[in-house]
Amino acid sequence: MAKHTTLYQHGTLALLVPGLLKGTMTMGELLKHGDTGIGTGEGLDGELIILDGKPYQIDASGRVNVVSNSFTMPFANIHYARYSPLAELENVSQDDLNEQIVSLSKAENTFFSVKITGTFSNIKTRAVRKSEPPFYTLAQTASHQSIFTRDQVDGTLISYYSPELFDGAAVAGFHHHFLSNDHQFGGHVLDFQLDKGDVSYQLFDTFEQHLPVNDKEYMQHDFSSDDIVGSIHTAE
Amino acid sequence: MAKHTTLYQHGTLALLVPGLLKGTMTMGELLKHGDTGIGTGEGLDGELIILDGKPYQIDASGRVNVVSNSFTMPFANIHYARYSPLAELENVSQDDLNEQIVSLSKAENTFFSVKITGTFSNIKTRAVRKSEPPFYTLAQTASHQSIFTRDQVDGTLISYYSPELFDGAAVAGFHHHFLSNDHQFGGHVLDFQLDKGDVSYQLFDTFEQHLPVNDKEYMQHDFSSDDIVGSIHTAE
Repeated sequence: MAKHTTLYQHGTLALLVPGLLKGTMTMGELLKHGDTGIGTGEGLDGELIILDGKPYQIDASGRVNVVSNSFTMPFANIHYARYSPLAELENVSQDDLNEQIVSLSKAENTFFSVKITGTFSNIKTRAVRKSEPPFYTLAQTASHQSIFTRDQVDGTLISYYSPELFDGAAVAGFHHHFLSNDHQFGGHVLDFQLDKGDVSYQLFDTFEQHLPVNDKEYMQHDFSSDDIVGSIHTAE
Repeated sequence: MAKHTTLYQHGTLALLVPGLLKGTMTMGELLKHGDTGIGTGEGLDGELIILDGKPYQIDASGRVNVVSNSFTMPFANIHYARYSPLAELENVSQDDLNEQIVSLSKAENTFFSVKITGTFSNIKTRAVRKSEPPFYTLAQTASHQSIFTRDQVDGTLISYYSPELFDGAAVAGFHHHFLSNDHQFGGHVLDFQLDKGDVSYQLFDTFEQHLPVNDKEYMQHDFSSDDIVGSIHTAE
């Protein structure tokens, strides 16, 4: 398997919907599969972004923390970065950018990652708040999240694009996380306006889906009555 | 990645629906990912079953052929066999067996493989017929398949179970292929009655989905108007 063409995923997005939020992989284990990624902690403990092998958590109070190798997660994506330049862009909105990237990349039917470094004229993020067992469902968590906004901020946005065919395993379309260069601001991106930035791109031919088979609650859960796709698109 | 807990898949089941049937991986490449598997050839050229690293094709005339390393496929599953005994069973139907396996394995939310060796009191298979470009859709192919039945036959059945969450990428539920010990009979299994056999089982924690990113027709296809799940369950 080619190291730079594989997107590794621990957990499947669907398990967040009924609140199967046990941390089933440690950060130490996850980092064996890449150096760049996104995710969340046990109980939906904040928003994670991994840059150059270093894992950062934006918690519900908006603080940016570096997490340890023993930090556990129910869901994360990671890959080995080898991005290629795609475009230098100025003054574009999130929607315009997503559209341009899909059109430039011609890769709507596979997984890819996008990295944007530059200055954002404004950016709106959220960070989810950890719940304790019995964990919140995804809908309950969404009502306990914090929203943050910042103007004129320099930083890095990491995004994964997943094809419609895999909606439910991943978020179909784009899923962006952000960290500012000063490590004072970040989170799961809800909206942004890019002032000026470099957009780069990395195509995957392999989606390596790892499931928490040792978690009895996951293995015994009946997903048939969960509205997976509906709940994900409401919350994400 | 643990060698014996990974199910590798080339192509995604959805691409068969609109007839994206180009052979996008050779058997030689596929065999780098396992020794046991199932699949189909370019244009839906018969039913494949791989046992102990040897790939057999049951063609639409019912003949069993050993295929070469240069044989190409749009879709295949393969893994490294390390099955554990699950049960010795007598006189069970396909439906009973599927139900018992799901109940014994407690693995409805992950991928696993089942291998049955024994005597089948009757078995009904089909083999699809190759089409040339422009390839048939899955529905058109289904109307050009051959059906075979055999009584009292000794052989091996290889099955993959996929969770409902991955329906469309794989066939949710069981997908069985068969080869008789005398190599005179086999195919995609439509129905069977097991007279007496050993059922063994192998659990996967990883589903490694490889996509044909170098096939322009796949990459540029608009899947939004294809009835993926409906067509798969009519045809399979």
